[in-house]
Amino acid sequence: MKQVKIPEATIGRLSFYSRFLTKLENDGIETVSSGEIAKGIAGNSAQVRKDFAYFGGFGKRGVGYNVADLNRNIKEILGLNREWKAVIVGMGNLGRALAYYHGFAARGFRIIGLFDNNPSKKGEKINNLEIQDASELENFLEKNPVDIAILTLPGETVQFVVDRVVKKGVKGILNFAPVVVFTEKDVQVRNVDLSVNLEILSYNLNSK
Amino acid sequence: MKQVKIPEATIGRLSFYSRFLTKLENDGIETVSSGEIAKGIAGNSAQVRKDFAYFGGFGKRGVGYNVADLNRNIKEILGLNREWKAVIVGMGNLGRALAYYHGFAARGFRIIGLFDNNPSKKGEKINNLEIQDASELENFLEKNPVDIAILTLPGETVQFVVDRVVKKGVKGILNFAPVVVFTEKDVQVRNVDLSVNLEILSYNLNSK
Repeated sequence: MKQVKIPEATIGRLSFYSRFLTKLENDGIETVSSGEIAKGIAGNSAQVRKDFAYFGGFGKRGVGYNVADLNRNIKEILGLNREWKAVIVGMGNLGRALAYYHGFAARGFRIIGLFDNNPSKKGEKINNLEIQDASELENFLEKNPVDIAILTLPGETVQFVVDRVVKKGVKGILNFAPVVVFTEKDVQVRNVDLSVNLEILSYNLNSK
Repeated sequence: MKQVKIPEATIGRLSFYSRFLTKLENDGIETVSSGEIAKGIAGNSAQVRKDFAYFGGFGKRGVGYNVADLNRNIKEILGLNREWKAVIVGMGNLGRALAYYHGFAARGFRIIGLFDNNPSKKGEKINNLEIQDASELENFLEKNPVDIAILTLPGETVQFVVDRVVKKGVKGILNFAPVVVFTEKDVQVRNVDLSVNLEILSYNLNSK
């Protein structure tokens, strides 16, 4: 199954589906149709079925999907059947917003370290984590293996930090600076550019 | 051309291409190949050509693309040949990060109003804009037509604010809360869920 190239938009929607399914699970709902899933995420049911088809359709049998099974399957595909440890480097407004965001833990992403190179921020607590000096990064990563580094840094410092964390075994980079990052082949980089979302929106508004 | 359904991932990449082309323009570079564009955004040249093919290939003639023409074409497609006025509602850490972010103005998105319902934030200046009380939102939108509302709000208040801004003619919503928003058919909503990017990353790490 993993050989099939899944469109990134489908992966993104799986993430939305899963959050909706988690809500249903918490509400004690046992079965759900593609139409209800579509409605729940303001999508359309043909799209839902098409997305599911990439993964063999998740074995629907006419009466709707079993909510818990479907959610477990989707989470497994997304790699959410395990915990991912992450650090945030750069405690400006965006770094803080991410450090305070409770949604990550609910999805299995555990933030275990916060770093900044501004000494005045050192020791400040956010969600029970103390901000550490950026010079401690290597030391910390040696003692605490981390999967993902979330970088909320000025563009000119990103590559330097990427090189440092990759050297310490970090395999995933979530980069919020609008710069291109170069890494080893076995490191996954995801660039989040806050403008891109506005530009997709302006495209949609413009092409109506 | 607008009838063709363009994958969202392509639109997102056009946004990256355009930022790279702007950098080339600023550096005085006149022509560029698909390979150079791919390298500039850490992508691959087959993808670049495939993306461009949706728009007729942008008339490449063997010697590479004219940087300025290509960028102008892409910006036109993205709707960036005009200015978009936006407000930010919710001045927590994420709202602040967006208000301070200089990348928006460079791409034609002008933030003209900041709103929060916490009286203690009222009057605080960010990038020369004073935070206004959320109760002023309707008044402001009547006097200052706005295209896009950027909502960095707790989930439970988003729908209420969406209804208010849509009533005042806002046609685009960029919603950062992990909730589904319902609007009129002619309003474009883009949901940005900060977890989604981490989950696409965990998918990529998991399916290596």
